[in-house]
Amino acid sequence: MVIKYKLKKKSSECKARLGEITTPHGTFETPVFMAVGTNATVKTLSVEELEELESHIILGNTYHLWLQPGDDIVRDAGGLHKFMNWKHSILTDSGGFQVFSLAKLRDIKEEGVYFKHHKSGAKLFLSPEKSIEIQNNLGSDIMMCFDECPPYPASHEYLEKSLERTLRWAKRCKEANRNKDTQGLFGIVQGGEFEDLRKRSARELVVMDFDGYSIGGTSVGEPKEIQNKVLDYTLDILPEDKPRYLMGVGSPGAILDAVERGIDMFDCVLPTRIARHGTAMTTNGRKILKNKEFERDFSPLDNKCDCYTCKNYTKAYLHHLIKADEILGYRLISIHNIRFLNNLTKEIRDAIREDRFMELKKRVYEEYGLKDGGKDF
Amino acid sequence: MVIKYKLKKKSSECKARLGEITTPHGTFETPVFMAVGTNATVKTLSVEELEELESHIILGNTYHLWLQPGDDIVRDAGGLHKFMNWKHSILTDSGGFQVFSLAKLRDIKEEGVYFKHHKSGAKLFLSPEKSIEIQNNLGSDIMMCFDECPPYPASHEYLEKSLERTLRWAKRCKEANRNKDTQGLFGIVQGGEFEDLRKRSARELVVMDFDGYSIGGTSVGEPKEIQNKVLDYTLDILPEDKPRYLMGVGSPGAILDAVERGIDMFDCVLPTRIARHGTAMTTNGRKILKNKEFERDFSPLDNKCDCYTCKNYTKAYLHHLIKADEILGYRLISIHNIRFLNNLTKEIRDAIREDRFMELKKRVYEEYGLKDGGKDF
Repeated sequence: MVIKYKLKKKSSECKARLGEITTPHGTFETPVFMAVGTNATVKTLSVEELEELESHIILGNTYHLWLQPGDDIVRDAGGLHKFMNWKHSILTDSGGFQVFSLAKLRDIKEEGVYFKHHKSGAKLFLSPEKSIEIQNNLGSDIMMCFDECPPYPASHEYLEKSLERTLRWAKRCKEANRNKDTQGLFGIVQGGEFEDLRKRSARELVVMDFDGYSIGGTSVGEPKEIQNKVLDYTLDILPEDKPRYLMGVGSPGAILDAVERGIDMFDCVLPTRIARHGTAMTTNGRKILKNKEFERDFSPLDNKCDCYTCKNYTKAYLHHLIKADEILGYRLISIHNIRFLNNLTKEIRDAIREDRFMELKKRVYEEYGLKDGGKDF
Repeated sequence: MVIKYKLKKKSSECKARLGEITTPHGTFETPVFMAVGTNATVKTLSVEELEELESHIILGNTYHLWLQPGDDIVRDAGGLHKFMNWKHSILTDSGGFQVFSLAKLRDIKEEGVYFKHHKSGAKLFLSPEKSIEIQNNLGSDIMMCFDECPPYPASHEYLEKSLERTLRWAKRCKEANRNKDTQGLFGIVQGGEFEDLRKRSARELVVMDFDGYSIGGTSVGEPKEIQNKVLDYTLDILPEDKPRYLMGVGSPGAILDAVERGIDMFDCVLPTRIARHGTAMTTNGRKILKNKEFERDFSPLDNKCDCYTCKNYTKAYLHHLIKADEILGYRLISIHNIRFLNNLTKEIRDAIREDRFMELKKRVYEEYGLKDGGKDF
C-alpha cells in the first residue's frame, strides 16, 4: 500500500482513534483536518503560511484543475506539488461531487457522465478512467475513486442502482491507476441513509482492498443525525488498519461527532469560505467581524488562539479591513480559521492519547456554544 | 526638525543625490520608493512581507482612513503603526488629492473645502486644521500639508490664486500641528506647469521652513516632459539639507528622470494596482500574466529578481492563478512589483554612491524597453 496507516491508540469510551498516516510526502497524526486548495491554492494563503499553521495535508479539486489550468499543464509543471510549491501531502477528490453539484444537464451512463461546463456550457465527459488519468497527472498522494454522489433525499431503488454502478466504477478506478507505487487510492462508501446499502457498499469496497475508505454522499443537505447514523453502521465494517475519511465535513460539532464514531480525516471549505465573508470560528463561537460591536474592540479575535492573526491584530483592525473590503482581512481570518480547526484536531488527538475524548467533546460543545445535532458554524 | 536628512553623496554627472532620512521610526537611504497602504494595509500584503521586500517607509491615505475606520478609532488603537502592526516609518498624505480627484461637487473656500463623499454623497469638510488633526490622530512620521491639487491643464490666473491660498493653508497646517516633536510636516510645491509660479511656491514654502518638500500637482495627466521641466526649475530652489518627494510617481522611467533632477522620495499605487489586473513589472518590460503565452511558461517571472515570487513560482502558475481569479495571484505579483521598484531604487542608490548614475539610467531604459518621454509601465 502506498498509504500507510498506524493505529496508535483507541479510546476506551467510544470509537475515537489516534493514528498516523504516511504518504510519499510525509507523516502526520490523525484525526486530521485538510484545508481545501481548489485551484492549486488554499484561498488567499501561501504554502509557508499553511506550514506555520501546521497543515500537513491539503485537498486539491480534480474537476477545477482539469478545466483550469488543465491537468496536462500541471503534469508538465512537474505535478501539483511542484506547480504550487507544496512539499507535503495532497489528497485529490475525483471530480464526482462537482459533476453532481456544479455541472448542468448530466447524463449518467455506465461508461461515465456526460455533462456541461458549469460556466461555459461546453460538453464534457468524466469517467473512472478519465478521473484517475487526471489525478495521475496531478500526482496527488491520495486519489479518490470516481463515484456518483446522489442528492439527499433519494429513494432506496435509485440509490441501489447508483451504488452498484459506483462499485463497478471503483473497480475500474483501481485498474486505471498507472502510478500504483506513488499514488494511493481511496474507495468511497455510498448508499444514502440506508443501512443495508451503506453496509453492502462498505463490504464490497473492502474486498477490493483500497488504501483507505471515505464516507461519501454526506454534507449534501441531510440532517446531522442521519450523518451520524450512517457513520454508526458503516465504520465497523471498514478495516481497522486503514484510514477513514469523512468528505466535506469541517464544523467543530460534526468533527467531534465523527471522531467519536471512528473517523480519521476531514476536509471542508468552511474556514476559508466564511473568512471571505468576514466570519471567524472562535472558542467563543462564531464572530461576524463586519458587525459594529467590533469597531472599537482592541482585543484579539480569540484569546485562546496562538495564530499569527490573534498574536498581532485586533478585532477592530479586522473589522476595518472587512468593511474596507481589503484582501488582508480575508487572509488574516482564513489563517485564524484554519488554525482553529488544526488546533481543535490537535486537542482531539491529545485527548484520545490521554483517553479523555468524551470530556473534551463535552467541554468544546459547551465552550463554543454548539448544540447537539444542530448546525454549529 | 523631526525628520533628519543627511546628504551622503552628489552625482558629478547630474543632480542625483544619495541621502539618508531618519524618522521617529527608523533610518533609510534615499532615493526611496514608498508602497501605498491606503486603508492601513498595502493591498494583499502582510507587514512581514513588506519587511522582507525591504520596504522601510509606506504611505497611508488620510482621506480614506478619516472616513473608514475613522481617525479617532486609529488614535484609540494607539495610532496607525500599532493599528496595522507596522514598526517602520509612515508618511500620510493630506487628503487634498482625493478631495480633488474622488469627491463630488467641491466648493473651495478660504477656510477649506466642502464636498460630498465619493460613494455615499454625505456632506464633508476638510481644511488645513482638520487634515492635520486627522494626521495627528493617525500618528504618521511624515505629514503633508493640505493643498489644492488643480487639474492639468489649468490657466496661469487660476493657478496663481490657488497657489496663494495653498501657501496660506501651508502656514495654517504648520501652526495646527500639535505633535511637533514626533511628527514632521512637508510643504507641497504647486504652480502647475508655470515656471514663475513653481519658483514662487518653492521660495515661499522654504521661508516657512518645513521638514521636507514635495512636488505636488504631478501625475495629473500632464506629459512627462512637463513633469521633468517642473522639476528642473523647482528643485534648485529647495534647500539641499531637506528631502524632496515627488508625489504619485512610481514608473521606472519617471523615477530615473526625477532622480536625475534631484528627487529623493516616490510613492505610487502602480505596483499593487497593476498586480490586481495580473500585470508585472520586470527587467524585460511589462508582462500581462493573463496572456496565453504564459500558459506553459515554467520559468520565473523575472530571472534577475530575487523576490519570493520569482524564487518559488513559475509564470505558468501565476497565469493560472490570475485566470482562476485567485487572490494568491494578486499577492504574488504585488510582492514582485514592489520588490522590483525597491530593487530599482537600490540600484539607483548604489549607482549614485559609485558615481555612475547616468550609465545605470541608460542601461535600465534599454533593458526594460522604456522610451524617453513616453509611458513606461
